[in-house]
Amino acid sequence: LKSKLPDVGTTIFTTMSQMAQQYNALNLSQGFPAFDPPAFLTERLVHHLKHSTNQYAPMAGVPALREALSEKAVMLYGAAYNPETEITITSGATEALFCAISSVVGIGDEVIVIEPAYDSYAPAIRLCGGIPVYLTLESPDFCMDWEQLARLISPKTRLIIINTPNNPTGLVWEKSDLDRLAALVRGTGIFVISDEVYEHIVFDGAHFSVMMHEELAPRAFVIGSFGKTFHITGWKVGYCYAPEGLTCEFRKVHQFLTFSVSVTAQFALADILLREKAHYLGLSAFYEHKRNLFNDCLKQTRFRFTPAKGTFFQTVSFEGLTDETDRELVERLTRETQVAAIPVSAFYRHPKGGKMIRFCFAKDDDTLLAAGERLCKIQ
Amino acid sequence: LKSKLPDVGTTIFTTMSQMAQQYNALNLSQGFPAFDPPAFLTERLVHHLKHSTNQYAPMAGVPALREALSEKAVMLYGAAYNPETEITITSGATEALFCAISSVVGIGDEVIVIEPAYDSYAPAIRLCGGIPVYLTLESPDFCMDWEQLARLISPKTRLIIINTPNNPTGLVWEKSDLDRLAALVRGTGIFVISDEVYEHIVFDGAHFSVMMHEELAPRAFVIGSFGKTFHITGWKVGYCYAPEGLTCEFRKVHQFLTFSVSVTAQFALADILLREKAHYLGLSAFYEHKRNLFNDCLKQTRFRFTPAKGTFFQTVSFEGLTDETDRELVERLTRETQVAAIPVSAFYRHPKGGKMIRFCFAKDDDTLLAAGERLCKIQ
Ligand SMILES: CSCCC(=O)C(=O)O
Ligand SMILES: CSCCC(=O)C(=O)O
Repeated sequence: LKSKLPDVGTTIFTTMSQMAQQYNALNLSQGFPAFDPPAFLTERLVHHLKHSTNQYAPMAGVPALREALSEKAVMLYGAAYNPETEITITSGATEALFCAISSVVGIGDEVIVIEPAYDSYAPAIRLCGGIPVYLTLESPDFCMDWEQLARLISPKTRLIIINTPNNPTGLVWEKSDLDRLAALVRGTGIFVISDEVYEHIVFDGAHFSVMMHEELAPRAFVIGSFGKTFHITGWKVGYCYAPEGLTCEFRKVHQFLTFSVSVTAQFALADILLREKAHYLGLSAFYEHKRNLFNDCLKQTRFRFTPAKGTFFQTVSFEGLTDETDRELVERLTRETQVAAIPVSAFYRHPKGGKMIRFCFAKDDDTLLAAGERLCKIQ
Repeated sequence: LKSKLPDVGTTIFTTMSQMAQQYNALNLSQGFPAFDPPAFLTERLVHHLKHSTNQYAPMAGVPALREALSEKAVMLYGAAYNPETEITITSGATEALFCAISSVVGIGDEVIVIEPAYDSYAPAIRLCGGIPVYLTLESPDFCMDWEQLARLISPKTRLIIINTPNNPTGLVWEKSDLDRLAALVRGTGIFVISDEVYEHIVFDGAHFSVMMHEELAPRAFVIGSFGKTFHITGWKVGYCYAPEGLTCEFRKVHQFLTFSVSVTAQFALADILLREKAHYLGLSAFYEHKRNLFNDCLKQTRFRFTPAKGTFFQTVSFEGLTDETDRELVERLTRETQVAAIPVSAFYRHPKGGKMIRFCFAKDDDTLLAAGERLCKIQ
């Protein structure tokens, strides 16, 4: 059997989480919150488990949840999406990414991926017969290179994937960035996927969603994740906003990929999404405190860094600290310092990315303080 | 945007379930059980929701659940599958089907689909660049046509999809059928997907799984569904058994399609799968009673039928009863008789299948009796 994804091995997230367990290290590698879901959410789940249907949800998602997402988009982004035809619930943001890619990318189509990039983009593109074309940003600042982007756009370009707030860099796009992107795709048939799973974790100013951009929104799939927002990455519920024509194709793929998503989880989320706004409106402050706490610890280490502007990740440079590669360093840190992190090179096609590693600070304060203490001691 | 699936509209299952609701009809169309999940399962779910992690399950599935599935395969089918490398948990059987197809089918590869066929097979094949090649079985008996199968096999054939017990025909393959299939693929590199989601609903004799077939098992993905087995189609948990080489590729696709499956549902299922064997060992008897009850009603109608040998579907012929097509008939039945069913033509590429409709008898006895009574009155 010839592999369609010969280069794919175990993801770095699985590898590092396993290694963290093996060495009893504090796991600041794989990105997941160390917090329980809010009680108001689990309470609703238990309720629906016992009192509502446990059979197939509608293919596009439970109507009440799509309606709540529609209202949320109006409230936060002033964006009008029709819940019947423009919003779809998926098995996590990962499925939403796959459906969006699959619905527009055919054989030989080029898709521009800005690296460092989340590890599912390129394999999903390849499984759909597309060709990832990489725009490579350089560490330690990962400054957006608009000229390189302009050069990479070709008549074969079908799609550009962006991710703001950005994993792993912690960078956030401003309206002016979206304006520049809009200028480059103006007059072309290029689509945009905007991976906004960290939409509620932004530290300086507000999140500027692609939904808010008049020129980009009509050609964009905007993807979000309840996992990130409600500390339920294990429930696997995500969503996609897209104009009707795109949603129509998106749903055709979703229908045959998974058909539908946990009905009970959807009922529970529908009950609380508008009522418990305070939870996600407070999420940035919640994580900003953690970022600051962790960064205060990092200041006493020999790592250099710019504070993350969004997400629950802090990327740091170890330039000048050791001759090791970032992979060697994270392995040694896990074994010896007992703090697990992710090498930033894992977000590049060809191991690259300079001497940087990523920590996840979605952890209890005590864990962050303990990790900080241990990291001060590294040689 | 040019559609990659131009022929795909709303599935017949969604259409008929909506129509049933609209006309307040008894919904014997879409295949889902009208029963609550067993209390021993929901109790475990509530427990894990409150006391276990709510974050990402391992990509391949929770180890305890894979181990339980491994033991179950030994117990029921005498088949040895390594839980670490040969069993994967998916977002329902639909995702398992997509992953299996995607892991072996490339551009231009032919896949033999035996129609009447479940509606996700062909679109999944097309999304992977493959070409569905149809083996068409004729109503009302849907007799397997081995000569036609032999003729359809070509050097481009990459995969054959079988489904036993079969939806919608209710037919079940014997060991001798698998032997004939094995003889046809012997010496070729053709893979097999065996969709066995109704493995625990067989009325005459035992289910003969592809897992039990020495020659076929090494080239097969065997797919199952907790939704069908535990009345939890809305939870979306399925699984795939396949030899290590196939599972390796299967997981690469799964990793980028959905990454992982509801962690809480997996913990709950792991707790009960071996302990509550009685549930699924008793499932055939549970549904045989329902089949017999419903068939006794059908005998008083003008429909003709052969009792289903497995699944929770009964297909009936209305040949000679009316000039309507099967679609016209199910629509009229829903509106006027207030019983919703599925036209068998929906399981064919080109509407075909003679004059047959499918009823789902996974319903309360009272519902089945009421439906039977109504169906006696049709003109
Ligand atoms: C699905 S595991 C990866 C989690 C994550 O988003 C990350 O660590 O970047
Ligand atoms: C996913 S909806 C279809 C349910 C089903 O298996 C059927 O009705 O055949």
